[in-house]
Amino acid sequence: MTVDTRFYVSLGALTLESAAALTGAELAGNPETPITGIAAADQARAGELAFLEGDGAGQPALSRDLNVLIVSEAARSRVPGGVACLVVKQPRHAHNVIARALFKPRHQLAQTRVAISPEAKVHPGADIGAGVVVGAGAAIGEGSVICPNVVIGPGVQIGRNGLIGAGASVHCALLGDHVTLLAGARIGETGFGVTPGPNGLEDAPHFGRVILQDHVTVGANTCIDRGVFADTIVGERTKIDNLCQIAHNVVLGRSVIVAAFGGISGSVRVGDGSMLGGRVGIADHVKVGAGVSLAGSAGLFRDVADGETWGGTPAKPIRQWMREVAWLAKQTSARKRD
Amino acid sequence: MTVDTRFYVSLGALTLESAAALTGAELAGNPETPITGIAAADQARAGELAFLEGDGAGQPALSRDLNVLIVSEAARSRVPGGVACLVVKQPRHAHNVIARALFKPRHQLAQTRVAISPEAKVHPGADIGAGVVVGAGAAIGEGSVICPNVVIGPGVQIGRNGLIGAGASVHCALLGDHVTLLAGARIGETGFGVTPGPNGLEDAPHFGRVILQDHVTVGANTCIDRGVFADTIVGERTKIDNLCQIAHNVVLGRSVIVAAFGGISGSVRVGDGSMLGGRVGIADHVKVGAGVSLAGSAGLFRDVADGETWGGTPAKPIRQWMREVAWLAKQTSARKRD
Amino acid sequence: MTVDTRFYVSLGALTLESAAALTGAELAGNPETPITGIAAADQARAGELAFLEGDGAGQPALSRDLNVLIVSEAARSRVPGGVACLVVKQPRHAHNVIARALFKPRHQLAQTRVAISPEAKVHPGADIGAGVVVGAGAAIGEGSVICPNVVIGPGVQIGRNGLIGAGASVHCALLGDHVTLLAGARIGETGFGVTPGPNGLEDAPHFGRVILQDHVTVGANTCIDRGVFADTIVGERTKIDNLCQIAHNVVLGRSVIVAAFGGISGSVRVGDGSMLGGRVGIADHVKVGAGVSLAGSAGLFRDVADGETWGGTPAKPIRQWMREVAWLAKQTSARKRD
Repeated sequence: MTVDTRFYVSLGALTLESAAALTGAELAGNPETPITGIAAADQARAGELAFLEGDGAGQPALSRDLNVLIVSEAARSRVPGGVACLVVKQPRHAHNVIARALFKPRHQLAQTRVAISPEAKVHPGADIGAGVVVGAGAAIGEGSVICPNVVIGPGVQIGRNGLIGAGASVHCALLGDHVTLLAGARIGETGFGVTPGPNGLEDAPHFGRVILQDHVTVGANTCIDRGVFADTIVGERTKIDNLCQIAHNVVLGRSVIVAAFGGISGSVRVGDGSMLGGRVGIADHVKVGAGVSLAGSAGLFRDVADGETWGGTPAKPIRQWMREVAWLAKQTSARKRD
Repeated sequence: MTVDTRFYVSLGALTLESAAALTGAELAGNPETPITGIAAADQARAGELAFLEGDGAGQPALSRDLNVLIVSEAARSRVPGGVACLVVKQPRHAHNVIARALFKPRHQLAQTRVAISPEAKVHPGADIGAGVVVGAGAAIGEGSVICPNVVIGPGVQIGRNGLIGAGASVHCALLGDHVTLLAGARIGETGFGVTPGPNGLEDAPHFGRVILQDHVTVGANTCIDRGVFADTIVGERTKIDNLCQIAHNVVLGRSVIVAAFGGISGSVRVGDGSMLGGRVGIADHVKVGAGVSLAGSAGLFRDVADGETWGGTPAKPIRQWMREVAWLAKQTSARKRD
Repeated sequence: MTVDTRFYVSLGALTLESAAALTGAELAGNPETPITGIAAADQARAGELAFLEGDGAGQPALSRDLNVLIVSEAARSRVPGGVACLVVKQPRHAHNVIARALFKPRHQLAQTRVAISPEAKVHPGADIGAGVVVGAGAAIGEGSVICPNVVIGPGVQIGRNGLIGAGASVHCALLGDHVTLLAGARIGETGFGVTPGPNGLEDAPHFGRVILQDHVTVGANTCIDRGVFADTIVGERTKIDNLCQIAHNVVLGRSVIVAAFGGISGSVRVGDGSMLGGRVGIADHVKVGAGVSLAGSAGLFRDVADGETWGGTPAKPIRQWMREVAWLAKQTSARKRD
């Protein structure tokens, strides 16, 4: 992946040898192989370090350009000829360690007591409230209103005629024109990626961004996490209610409606024009087609084709769910009369 | 409705003719008819523009004082004699456009870098923390404590002995005495009103307020949206837990208890003394009586009479729900033994 | 309990007589009996006032050191010899009144317009953002990053290498090393304790703390309330996602995983290494063993033994739940074909 250096400082390249030293890995291949970036294994380009989990089975095909990989002993046989590798017990943990040595999020670096960075580009036609903090390299377009006590992280790009509500925060994100965030929205935090490490659970670092296209609206106290090795994307005119959770690497299409307490797990895809009722939950990696309706409270664990309406937990086609609800009521009501 | 000019700047009246020009509408009636305000069609007074959705069927009776209306061609026959009208393809969208030309929320207008407006009335016996922002025309009563980094919008009225927790925000709202908002509560944001427009989905503007009566408590990161053409009202001594969502135009009675993750959709009414367990969801426009109990996790789609106890999703009387749960367990457990 | 005076100011001791005067209680015992603190009845030491609810039946055994108690007339016979007592109609309400006369949370006392208290200890190697507010007596360790517009309450202790995300707030809390709070997290607010009083519902005051052990991560806009007469504790390396609610007096073990919208009610215990899927709710006082898995959307009302996997609402062992789901689908699908 191309790590966006507006959001992440590059701390300099490593070599296979220095990366092995950092992680205690066994090294196979040219020790001078440069490691300049990070990626998922199916997306990696030359110099971008990827990893295989477990024995490497059941994972997408490796990128052809990949030339450096972390694997466990069990997955070693899957390393193609010509690809340098590091062999460790916990490949994902080792990848985390090396990734943290390559890049660091700018908003976690040296804080400044200056509220509006002199290195930010705030259009004179933007309107900035009291207590607003804007990081270096951020840009805010004409006509955008930034309400009091908002935090705009370094490098964040906000288009024209946006509205950022009181106390919201935006990091590692690109916002189009006419984007509205209501008060307390949290855009671009690290996603929830718990990884076993040698000392127990640890957090996986995230190096992606959040992209909010034109006319997106995000409700109060809603959270949209940034991606791990890719972006979390919300399509044009998609409208998200208060207190929703949009996890890392999610892609919502255009004109999607997500009502309050919508919970969309990692890497879910939702097609254009789909409507999610209140408190809908979608399990990770599920694919929802275009024009789908999910009834309030639905808990969805499977893919749904275009245009379908589903409900219930676990969710199923709405007619089947309603039939079950009615049948069960009828059976037990009959028993009562026995 | 009477738009509260403490919260919304009046941008000046329109005429039927200028409103038609704004929206490309066909005009019927006196072009000089003044449009001075906005309202729902059953509440409108003279000069207050209302609209009918679709073909106008199934909507409440028109207010007798109404004299100017937006309709689609299909609903044109429902316009009473003597009522001026605008005929458009998307009446709600046109109403939004005209409403935005009449009024603008003050907290989205010119921001000021001054934290405490000299035009706010802060009682000398109120206690204001660092980083607090108070807008013009706001008033804070004796003995109220405003914790650090809170944002109090223009015109907001806070009574005596209130407590506003760190980082909370309050807009377009009137708070009685002894009102407590815990940290990060979001009062008075725009509700979730997605409307189709000529370019796709758009947000419906909101012109109401939030009223929190005496001794109301609102939990951390809970959201209470302001009404569209009316107020969202929370009655005396009602207690709301963390991370709840109270939508536009909701009316909660007195001494209602709403546990965490309670989700109350638009225009719901809940009677005095009702108790909602954790994670209860109520669909829009549902009426819940007084003294009702809803079990944790209930998803309610129908009205409930005074004093009843319901549970399940879709919610039903608790005995019926428990009977279904027990019967289903018994059937499948019997099958196992076959 | 030992009320931590870093978080609560002691307003001075009372006597049985002055406490009776405050609450209109009938007094039995030596009027000079000092009341120096508060506690739950099974934990109280000499001088710590406790109470019995209702007729006092079904409550844990009284502490042997307890020497002063509030009871209703109905529970009077349960007061041991030698224990002074106050007799009132609403014991819990009276206890609240007296507790409030003994202690007051420092963060609700005199606010200061100074952002970083000169009485706070901020390590020179900590990194403090713009708009951050730090109360008197707080301490922030080396290498910790406090992002912009965070509020750290008086007396709060933050260890080394912590990360507190933008706009978060922390009160009445002790944080170990390497603790991460993402943006908008709310640590240490008053829990939801609604108590009937003579004028209707009131909030129970809370005098405990939140303890977050080393390497704990708390997601964006998640809330962790402080305990009533004890602490809310989150064990080492436990990882909590965005928009979760952890109520007062909860104890989460080590390496517990709580996915988004997890709702853990008051006094729940969860053992080491348990995993809670998205939107899991647990009713108050439930005990969850170690190594337990709860499927996404589970609503748990009963204790679960070590190592089990449960799902559904009300939750049950996962195989039973799946059997019910499958059987119900089969029955109604058969009916359809009839």
